[in-house]
Parts: sequence; structure tokens; C-alpha cells
Amino acid sequence: MKDKKNFVDTEDFSKEELLDIMHLGLIIKENIKKGYPLNVLYHKSLGMIFEQASTRTRVSFETAMTQLGGHAQYLAPGQIQLGKHESLKDTAMVLSRLVDILMARVQKHESITNLAKWASVPVINGMSDYNHPTQEMGDITTIYEHLPEGKKLEDLKVVFVGDATQVCASLMMMITKMGGHFVQYGPKGFQLNEHFREIARRNCEVSGGTFLITEDEEEALKDADFIYTDVWYGLYEAELSEEERKGIFYPKYQVDMDMIKKASKDVKFMHCLPATRGEEVTDEVIDSEYSIVIDQAENRLTAMRALLVYFMGKEKETIEICKKNLGSN
Amino acid sequence: MKDKKNFVDTEDFSKEELLDIMHLGLIIKENIKKGYPLNVLYHKSLGMIFEQASTRTRVSFETAMTQLGGHAQYLAPGQIQLGKHESLKDTAMVLSRLVDILMARVQKHESITNLAKWASVPVINGMSDYNHPTQEMGDITTIYEHLPEGKKLEDLKVVFVGDATQVCASLMMMITKMGGHFVQYGPKGFQLNEHFREIARRNCEVSGGTFLITEDEEEALKDADFIYTDVWYGLYEAELSEEERKGIFYPKYQVDMDMIKKASKDVKFMHCLPATRGEEVTDEVIDSEYSIVIDQAENRLTAMRALLVYFMGKEKETIEICKKNLGSN
Amino acid sequence: MKDKKNFVDTEDFSKEELLDIMHLGLIIKENIKKGYPLNVLYHKSLGMIFEQASTRTRVSFETAMTQLGGHAQYLAPGQIQLGKHESLKDTAMVLSRLVDILMARVQKHESITNLAKWASVPVINGMSDYNHPTQEMGDITTIYEHLPEGKKLEDLKVVFVGDATQVCASLMMMITKMGGHFVQYGPKGFQLNEHFREIARRNCEVSGGTFLITEDEEEALKDADFIYTDVWYGLYEAELSEEERKGIFYPKYQVDMDMIKKASKDVKFMHCLPATRGEEVTDEVIDSEYSIVIDQAENRLTAMRALLVYFMGKEKETIEICKKNLGSN
Repeated sequence: MKDKKNFVDTEDFSKEELLDIMHLGLIIKENIKKGYPLNVLYHKSLGMIFEQASTRTRVSFETAMTQLGGHAQYLAPGQIQLGKHESLKDTAMVLSRLVDILMARVQKHESITNLAKWASVPVINGMSDYNHPTQEMGDITTIYEHLPEGKKLEDLKVVFVGDATQVCASLMMMITKMGGHFVQYGPKGFQLNEHFREIARRNCEVSGGTFLITEDEEEALKDADFIYTDVWYGLYEAELSEEERKGIFYPKYQVDMDMIKKASKDVKFMHCLPATRGEEVTDEVIDSEYSIVIDQAENRLTAMRALLVYFMGKEKETIEICKKNLGSN
Repeated sequence: MKDKKNFVDTEDFSKEELLDIMHLGLIIKENIKKGYPLNVLYHKSLGMIFEQASTRTRVSFETAMTQLGGHAQYLAPGQIQLGKHESLKDTAMVLSRLVDILMARVQKHESITNLAKWASVPVINGMSDYNHPTQEMGDITTIYEHLPEGKKLEDLKVVFVGDATQVCASLMMMITKMGGHFVQYGPKGFQLNEHFREIARRNCEVSGGTFLITEDEEEALKDADFIYTDVWYGLYEAELSEEERKGIFYPKYQVDMDMIKKASKDVKFMHCLPATRGEEVTDEVIDSEYSIVIDQAENRLTAMRALLVYFMGKEKETIEICKKNLGSN
Repeated sequence: MKDKKNFVDTEDFSKEELLDIMHLGLIIKENIKKGYPLNVLYHKSLGMIFEQASTRTRVSFETAMTQLGGHAQYLAPGQIQLGKHESLKDTAMVLSRLVDILMARVQKHESITNLAKWASVPVINGMSDYNHPTQEMGDITTIYEHLPEGKKLEDLKVVFVGDATQVCASLMMMITKMGGHFVQYGPKGFQLNEHFREIARRNCEVSGGTFLITEDEEEALKDADFIYTDVWYGLYEAELSEEERKGIFYPKYQVDMDMIKKASKDVKFMHCLPATRGEEVTDEVIDSEYSIVIDQAENRLTAMRALLVYFMGKEKETIEICKKNLGSN
């Protein structure tokens, strides 16, 4: 594939490119909801490499390929180990001859950058210890679908509550890229590091957005349009015990109805899931009318379809087919 | 999906509905055997959750989806654990947005009833510790295809030999629902319990069938049209050792040629498989002309196709296509 | 399926039949590279049984089925155990009713011969402890595509360096069948045994080829057109430790640039992969212009497509479609 592109990090793309992918996802979504079949990836194969188990990412990609006329192959944890039995370079070069596009969920971010470097087909990052860009694409889509009346993406205040996980970092990168106002409300020692603050600064300079990292609840939540949280386990091998994490985050950083009430009256609650109910969020919040976590989960699929189509170079063709099906112009 | 229905227990359906599903399966089977492609589930995704390993159920569902134009995703034991990392409710609601229909083989029956309750897409029970309704659908299809000359379903005597497994319970529920005559020939302590006897009574009252649970071989086998058995392992975690199970069931409850000779001269031998040859059945019987176990295994696929079509609301459309293909009217 | 054939051992086929399959693979490859869809296995299911993990074989088969309009089911190690929970005969007979064709990677060669015996659908050997015939088909295709100018298959000198693995044995069987000149350059104790030498003699008698097994490097490599090697682990359960294998094969049997220089100036380097770089081959060689290992890996897929089409009885139909698409005659 000539000039193939990879989706490893949203920082490699402009605001306009990311919005194009988002809109591509939305038109495909409408097309499929209305029952029009698509075959733009007819007989194409996606190789899915999972070094970490994942239900949502795997099922979304697999359904996306089916809906686009292709097929996804699931290489489960243990079935393939990047860089173990053979060099990652060899794996990348060989798989590139056997499938049309690759995605990988990896333990170490350098595995995905190396895979992207050596593969001759497009590579999509399905989460690393550094970032989670497919989640970002699904999340910005969900936020766009749930924009408060009269507001644009650039007007939004989006608050991440809790630990600086890769989901927190990813949310920051997307929101500051879009020109919105990002806040991490989390305890010192579990806040986004200088590397990420530098990215935030750079993004805001271009986009006109702002960012804030704080332990001050009132400041964090005032007028928040979206409150987002993630589990408190910590990352991969450095997992925290239940006791440890409760000692750090509980009860201050648990999203409960008191927190919701401190935000905008139209605030929406988001979570990348799976949630540990009773830890980072109460049943009352996640089951409330404020919660859009199920719509958000569905938009993982919306994002996957768009990313597959876009990086397989089928964007224009797909938009034309969808517009024709939907009778727009 | 509005008013979605689930297939958790055949007791939720009338005799007529179950026969409709059986006949749907038979016409699809004929259509596919004659080489007419079907695409009634075009680009649809089935999510298959297996808490227990299974070859027959998994392969049947996966082939069925392929033959209907869709795709089945295999979530293997260990890859997804209902109610472990996230609440079963969250899993059900999220997966419902990512796939079109779900099936699950579960450890505990309440997992399948909860999945059916929370999922917004149809849920099919691929076996629990309580029942095995897809096996029931395949078995009644096999029995129907092998009806002794001049007999109807209502005339049949069907004898289950051995332990009151969920397959035994399921066979009882189907046969008594259909108005046939069900016998469990098994030792006290390993007979269907009062819960199931109550179901049998209720079914027989409606259908005109009968049931008998006995240790008396002559009474059990006299004029039997079908003899059915299952392994002696016991259920799931309460597995018996080889010594224990032989002590209980051997040799009295082993299906051998002597047993076959005590039944109707046209008796057929059935087994849900896998079989432990030399335990519950002899090689001589399972390899004999009386044995229809391979036809029976194939009808797992016949049943799966019908269930998928029926619960996806494609029954009428499918029958029309098949009739047109087959030139019937 | 009437008169079904299996692909267990290339010795069961004539040179002409094997070349037919190779050419079938090449025309399908051209058809797919040019973007013409094929649906000759529309809605067909391949059951893939893996007793040993494998990336290349599994991914190749799965992509092949997708490209031909069908679907491959992956039964991973541990998910199905031939001859464990039920007799291999029962498994073979049941799966034959549920899928259209089977492939298996097995621990013991007798598992694949028994599967082929009992299955009523075609069975393809995806590697055993005895041979690796799908690798042979891919390799002869690669050799054919990289024929030195002015040479035919019958003129080639192909040298396998190292341990008499099943890949070594398979390469010998294919090269001697084709009438070429096969050499194993490996240490005593790790050379092809009398059983294989007898096959080599028999093949050469028919084909006019030759074979040599030697420890003499100069004699082995002189005028070699292809140098092929494989890992030094040894077979399956009799795996050698790194220390043991280095003691036996290193440095004499490591393919390095000195070895390459002793061969024909147009020599090509082949490896079935995965490679243990720094053991049986140096980085310098595998990354050099002499190396065709990535083309070779791609031709696993070329071979799989041809084998699936051929053993499903779709050879003629496929060739006609491809010729029509490609505008040949």
C-alpha cells in the first residue's frame, strides 16, 4: 500500500482531519441504522492483535468489519506475542502480506510504534500504556451527539475525575485539540505529567482551548458540561490493590450525585467502561438520566468503522455511497 | 429492538410455536442442502459468550451465521466473565449496542436469565446448569425426521437412560410439551427432581402426554421408540470420578445391545455427544444401524439456523425465500 | 461429499497434480491482486483445529476463506483435543456435518491420518510431527516465482541447512518429486532418516532428480540456487535447550554471508519462519537482497487458497472465472 498512514496517536492529525473521521463515522452510522448494506471493505481482512484482553474493543472492531463486508481475525493474548518468538519486525512484515490492515492492543507503547513502522499495511492503536486513540474518536463522537443546546465543541468544559490513566491523557489530547476546556480533577501524584502538560499547552496554543489540573472540586466542576471517569486500578503491571486505591481516591474522587449537582445542570456523565460500581462512580450516577455511558460504548463501533474506512483509503467512496443511500446531497 | 424475545427455556413457548421453529429449521436445511444461498442475516453479528467450552454448540452457531450471511463472534471462556469485571447488567447493555443477537453458555442459569433481562437484543440459552433448549430443538427435529412409520410425535415413547442431567431435563420438557411419552430410567438419587416432575405434570395436562421415572428396566424400555443417554460425569463442579460414576450406573444403566433388544424393533439410539464409549454406551450400540447420533449432531445446526432467524424476526421472509427457491407453494 | 480427497501428504499426489495446484494458486493470486472478488466458496465453512499454536498457518487459512467468500472457524489449542474427551472418530464424523472442510495442525501424524479417514469432508494437514505439506506448496510456488533466469524446476539445486525437521523432510519430498536436486547439509544424528531417504530415492527414480545428505559444506553449497533453513529447537516435545542446540549446530550450520558466497551468485535465502535471528541465520542474511522470506510467507496464503479451492472441487470453475476476469484465454 503506497503512502499508508497509521492511527497511533491523535497528535499526528489536525483538528480538521479528526473531525473528518468523526463525520465519516456519523454518516456510516446513519446508513447502517437505516439498514443500507455497505461493502466498501468487501473480503478484506483485519488482523487484531491483543496483548491485553478486551471485550469492547475486540467486539467493536469485529462487528465493524462484518458490517463493512470484511472480516476481523482475533489473535488473542498468548496466541501471538510481539517480539517474543520472532522479531517484531518479522511479524509486522509477514502479517502485512496476509491481512489488509492491522490493529493492536499492546502492553508497551513502543510495540505499536514499531508495528506501525515495520508493517506495510495501516496500523491502528487499540490502546497502549500511553494512550487510547480509538476511545478518543468514540468519545468525541458521543460528546458531539450530546452537545448542550447552543454550544459548539469549542465551548465545552470537560472534566476528567480521578487517576491520570491513558484514557485521561487521551481525553485531554482530544479536548485540547478541539479547542475545548479540559480539566483533570485528581490528587497530586496521580495527575497528568509534564509530558502531557506540554502537549496540552501546544494544543491549546493552536486551538484556543484551555486546560487545568487541580485538586479543587468547586473550581473543577463549576459549569462542567461533561464529567468523565475511569477505574482506579492504575495501569497494567503497576495495578493498585483495592485498599490502596480506595485510600487514594475515596471518597473525594468518587463521582456521586453531589458532584453531578456541582456541574452544569445539563451535565452528562461518561465512562470508558468497564466500571467498578461503588468505586469511581455510584450506581445512582451511572444509572441516572445524566449517564450516557451506553451511547458512548456504542460509539466505539461508530469510531472503528470510520477508522477502518479512512485508513483503508475508502473515505470518499463511502461518503458517496452513504449520501446516495440516504438521499442527501 | 422492539418487543424482543429470548430463547431461555422452551417452557416459555407453546407446542405450536416450537413446531413452527422446527419446521422453519427443516425448510432452511433443505434450502441449504440444495445449494440456494440465504442472506437473511446479512452483515448481522451474533455474540457468543462461552463460560464453558463447547465444540458442537459453538461450531453450529458459527456455521449457521455464515450460512445466513452474517458472522458469529466467539468470546471464549476466560475472555469474558459475566458479572466479574463489570456488572452483568453493564455487559448486557453494552454488548446489545455492539452486536445484533447474543447467545451464552453459562455456569449458572441465573446468568442467562439476567442476560436476557438486561440485553436489548434477543438472547439464546446455549446451555446452563438447568437446561439445554437448543439441544431440545435439534433433538425434536431429529426425532421428527426419524419418526417410526405411521406414528406421530404424540405417539412416541422416548426413554432417557441414566443421570438426570440438564439434557435429561430438557428432553423431558420437550417430549411432554409435544404430548409424547417420556421415561427416565435411572437410579434413585439421580432422577429428575420435584421441580421438573411438576413441569412434566403441567405439560402432560395440556398436551395429553405421560411421564414415568423408574428403576424398572422392563417397564422403561418396553416399546420404546427412542433410547437416549448422556455422560455420567454429573454437572459441572459436582463432577463424579470415574470410579464413583461406575459404582452408581454401571452396568445397569449402560446402553448395550441387550437394552436395545428390549425396546421397539425400530428403536433409535440418541446421544447429545460427546460420548464416553464404554461407559454410558457400548461401541456396538453407538456404531450400529440403530444409532442416529450423527444426524442428531447435524441437527444442532438445523436448530441454530431456525432459532437465529426466528428471534431476529426474519421467519416470514425466510420461509418465502426458501419456498420460492424450492419451488413449493 | 462423494469421493472426497484429503491433503495429508504430497507423496499421495503426482508431480502433475501438485503443479496444477500451484498454478491454480498463481492464477487466484493474480485475480485477487488485481481486485477481482471471488466467491467460489460462498458461505462455506472451514473448521481449523490447532493442537499447536500457529500464527502464519492460521492467519493464511482465515484470510483465504474470507477472500473466497467463506469463513474459517478457529478452534484453538485447548478448545478441542483430538481423541481426549471423545473418540477422534466421533469428532471427525460430527464436524463433517457442521463444516464443509477441515484442516488440522496436530501433535502426532496419526491424528491427521485418522481425521482424514473418518471425516466425510476433505481434510488438510496444517503440519504434523512428520511433515508440513501446505508449507511445501507455498515453497514450490515461491521457488517457481524466483526461478533463476533460464532454469526450470528440474534444474534447481535446493539446499536445506540444519536439523532434519518436518520442514526439511517436506522440502526434500517436494524437490525430489519435482525432479530437482535436494541437499541436506546437516550434522550426523540430525539428518533425514532412512524412511525419508527411501522416499527420496523413489521420487528421484520417477522424476530424474537427485538427493544428497552431507556434512561437507563446499559440496553442499556449490552452485546452490536456494538455501533454506529452519529453527534449531527440534521437534515438539523433544525440544532442545539453547545451549544444546548451539553446541550441535553453531557456528557451522548458521546461514551467514560466507555461506551465501559459496553458493550460486543468484542464490536466494528461504526460511519457513519464525526465525531465531542470530541462531540459524544472521540478521545480515535474512535482511539482505538474497532473502525472499517475506514473499515466501505470503505464498502460504497463495497455497491455502489453491488447496481450499482444489479440495472443495471448485478448480475448474475458479480457473474459468479468473481467466475471464484477467482477460486471458
